[in-house]
Amino acid sequence: MEGCSKCEANFVPLSPISFLERATFVYGKSLSIIHNDVSYTWKETRDRCVKLASALSIIGVNPGKVVATIAPNTPAHYELHFGVPMAGAIFSALNTSLDPPALATTLQQLEPQVIFVDHQYIQTVSEAFKLLSHDKTAPPRLVLIGGTSCTVMPMNTLDYNDLLSLGKDDFKIIHPNDECDPISINFTSGSTGNPKGVIYSHRSAYLNSLAVIFRYDMKKMPVFLWTVDMFRCNGWCFPWALAALGGINICLREVTAEVIFNSIVIHKVTHLCGPPTILDKIASSKTNEQRVMPTRVDVIVAGPLPSSEIMLKVKKFGFDIHHGYGMSEALGPMTNTSLRMNDQKQEDNDERVKIRCREGTHNILMEDVDVKDPETMTSVPFDGNTIGEIMFRGNIVMLGYLKNMEGTQNVFKGGWYMTGDLGVRNPNGDIVMKDRKLDSIVTNGEIVSTIDIERVIRTHPFVKEVAVVGKPDNTLGETPCAFVTLKDDYSLSSSGIIEFCQEKSLPRSMIPINVCFGTLPMNSTGKVLKYILRERAKTIGI
Amino acid sequence: MEGCSKCEANFVPLSPISFLERATFVYGKSLSIIHNDVSYTWKETRDRCVKLASALSIIGVNPGKVVATIAPNTPAHYELHFGVPMAGAIFSALNTSLDPPALATTLQQLEPQVIFVDHQYIQTVSEAFKLLSHDKTAPPRLVLIGGTSCTVMPMNTLDYNDLLSLGKDDFKIIHPNDECDPISINFTSGSTGNPKGVIYSHRSAYLNSLAVIFRYDMKKMPVFLWTVDMFRCNGWCFPWALAALGGINICLREVTAEVIFNSIVIHKVTHLCGPPTILDKIASSKTNEQRVMPTRVDVIVAGPLPSSEIMLKVKKFGFDIHHGYGMSEALGPMTNTSLRMNDQKQEDNDERVKIRCREGTHNILMEDVDVKDPETMTSVPFDGNTIGEIMFRGNIVMLGYLKNMEGTQNVFKGGWYMTGDLGVRNPNGDIVMKDRKLDSIVTNGEIVSTIDIERVIRTHPFVKEVAVVGKPDNTLGETPCAFVTLKDDYSLSSSGIIEFCQEKSLPRSMIPINVCFGTLPMNSTGKVLKYILRERAKTIGI
Repeated sequence: MEGCSKCEANFVPLSPISFLERATFVYGKSLSIIHNDVSYTWKETRDRCVKLASALSIIGVNPGKVVATIAPNTPAHYELHFGVPMAGAIFSALNTSLDPPALATTLQQLEPQVIFVDHQYIQTVSEAFKLLSHDKTAPPRLVLIGGTSCTVMPMNTLDYNDLLSLGKDDFKIIHPNDECDPISINFTSGSTGNPKGVIYSHRSAYLNSLAVIFRYDMKKMPVFLWTVDMFRCNGWCFPWALAALGGINICLREVTAEVIFNSIVIHKVTHLCGPPTILDKIASSKTNEQRVMPTRVDVIVAGPLPSSEIMLKVKKFGFDIHHGYGMSEALGPMTNTSLRMNDQKQEDNDERVKIRCREGTHNILMEDVDVKDPETMTSVPFDGNTIGEIMFRGNIVMLGYLKNMEGTQNVFKGGWYMTGDLGVRNPNGDIVMKDRKLDSIVTNGEIVSTIDIERVIRTHPFVKEVAVVGKPDNTLGETPCAFVTLKDDYSLSSSGIIEFCQEKSLPRSMIPINVCFGTLPMNSTGKVLKYILRERAKTIGI
Repeated sequence: MEGCSKCEANFVPLSPISFLERATFVYGKSLSIIHNDVSYTWKETRDRCVKLASALSIIGVNPGKVVATIAPNTPAHYELHFGVPMAGAIFSALNTSLDPPALATTLQQLEPQVIFVDHQYIQTVSEAFKLLSHDKTAPPRLVLIGGTSCTVMPMNTLDYNDLLSLGKDDFKIIHPNDECDPISINFTSGSTGNPKGVIYSHRSAYLNSLAVIFRYDMKKMPVFLWTVDMFRCNGWCFPWALAALGGINICLREVTAEVIFNSIVIHKVTHLCGPPTILDKIASSKTNEQRVMPTRVDVIVAGPLPSSEIMLKVKKFGFDIHHGYGMSEALGPMTNTSLRMNDQKQEDNDERVKIRCREGTHNILMEDVDVKDPETMTSVPFDGNTIGEIMFRGNIVMLGYLKNMEGTQNVFKGGWYMTGDLGVRNPNGDIVMKDRKLDSIVTNGEIVSTIDIERVIRTHPFVKEVAVVGKPDNTLGETPCAFVTLKDDYSLSSSGIIEFCQEKSLPRSMIPINVCFGTLPMNSTGKVLKYILRERAKTIGI
């Protein structure tokens, strides 16, 4: 159109880096980070991140290169979320629970130029290094966070603070040329096989940081307790959202019920989040660990929910529970359960726990969510019954899987990201997740949700944990097989579980044919490794 | 990076259209619009907008064409904010206070294919039509909103509801190919000359809708009273922001104190905004118009503030006043006065009015704001004293001026949008606007802010309104000349004003040499037309 001029004045590539630059002016003297005796203001955090970016450039980290971290939720780890992109590099926070062989596999795939290692993880990293082959590329440079260098580290290991002091104050921050350039790589938890490297763009990270704020109606200057690992989808994008809001990051090395209650009282925490195991920790806290909470605290969990008994217990302490549904490929939790008109009437009773704990609908910044037949790509009816595959579309979806174009192309189909999750659509539009596609059972031609079966068995008063998988069957295709962990000091037989399911009126196709007792194999996020159970189920006789 | 695939699943051009589509699912059964006896739900509003877009396509409105409106804040006007872009067309809401010659000039420049006219403005439009020359292009098609067709209208005039009924329910909404494509054209108020057509992109409209929400910490489902004209920067982008939040639009034909108070009580209004004249209306309401307000209401004004006496009166009714600073070129008000740590202590006393009423800093989605020497482009020190030109940079800046590339290039310089406003930077980073560059006085080589002089004179108990301009002077270059309107039943001489300024310790260079009494020439937004006063000043003898 005549008169239009797209230029630097009216077009700036979207990047979370902008949030930090603005925070310097708007919240410059306010606190950004508190960790034990250390604290910084937003001005100080910005200055440290600039020096970090400068230092990375000086030691040869060029735009487009990868910088990895293996660290808990410390101030340094927070700073790296900005410092690495500000050097034009791509940031990858690795799972701290990886063992040396798994870490070596990840590093081989990631090829980072520099790795920042917290002193807690020196041993794991040096063992992983021994397993790495450096035939083609130079070994990554190590930077040690905290502690002192030790003999197991390579010769050219740098100290984090020494590195920082190399940096120049007047370094010119490198903004992305294209907002779709990668900012970070986050590995999936690998509950269905090998972890995949999920690539985020500056644009998606920027928009999801805003989405995070909208989802929880967050106001300016919140106080955020770091109970979600920064290596999970970049801490659900909270490092960047906190800069946008000028909030305070309460950094933590370890998350216990005692630390949660104490932090809330000392720092007036407003938000914390993480896997549902956080709710278990709070609910099972000892009386001497519990504190009277000065105000309501929003706690946001994503993943399979614990019993409503646990949730109500947590709620009674003064926590307001939100449930998110998402995945690494969608930058973390991405649905929210908006309170609708009718819901607001229930605002103050326990019903609210239930309302908040549906998968819900997509947030403001996600373009669309749907449940579709993956073959025909037609939407399922809003009947709460018809199962289809949950799909997303929008700017808060990954760019793809690192060095795995085939994997990328497999999950993008017809303009949608296919989650691999099965779900239904409620009459009000809410999505309800029913099962992982890989985990669901097809028995006598009918798709059965293992999650629905587990939900019923979990209400048995003796049951602590349960996982249901399909067991191959010559006649029916598959039949449900339940693996059950009982609470301490309780005992039960297979028929006890089967009869309980019958009493609860589970349809015949959903009643387990086999029940096994024992502990369940889990990954580091507490997700049950069903592929292991499926193998076990094959070996069980009737 | 290997594995990345930019595709429709992970990249959707940003457009406010998306907010309406999402509102259908998330807030479908909730109210979207209330206007007298008419009300719609979000599902209904979406369906009506789809039909509107379809009907526009049917009557030949092709992507990239312009559709104009001349209407008050009615439901139809709201629907057009979505329906026009959903047909791929560009929306232009015109100032309803234009007289026929001014309207004809604007239409000649805009060349709309269709004009939607509210029945209130038929006479003006038909007179403007007579002044239009249609040598080159076909005359625009008219659509009448409300009322019945009358003889003054062209033969092919359509009725809004008839047009709507032409539309198909299953019309495929047209999203922009490129998010930087134009969505709308808004004309400046023309306080410095001829109105200019300011072009907004889908991207800037989308991001500013989110910025609006952040600026006022708006929560989901607000109740918005339409006291700002939809033809002002697309109603400050509130039509789109309301869809993003699933709020309720309380549409109004006319804004009076009585309507404001009644609407607040009946609809539980949470937000209203507009020019500062709204504050005057509320403050000068009659006792029988006033109501006890059920809750706090946020009122957001932009423009020269009235006296603190008026603001405190408004505050006492239960309104919380926010002050914005902006311009059409930055999509409306764009700074906000974030409460900082220290400010929060003053949350509950009258100081808050002052805190909120600074120009403040840029909002989360604006990249940067600065005060610079326009020659050297260096930033002024944060001393609250050094005057420079206020400049913005970021995604919430216009694409340019319609058919005026020279004008566009004049305001974009070195990657910044130059506002033409003079300001200073406070030590805390806040911007304070001092004057329009064109309005400021250079006396004896010193830049003097006419706004600062006016601020002092306005505190005189007899003064109702004041405007200061420069009067050419052979020795000093210019000297301050004050035009003063006195309150009813008061009288004062020139020396009364001059002595008052001396008593208030205004520096000598800022004390008016000439004072004239009478009413002030104003445009439709209540802005004083200083270019007229400058001409008058030339004719005044000492």
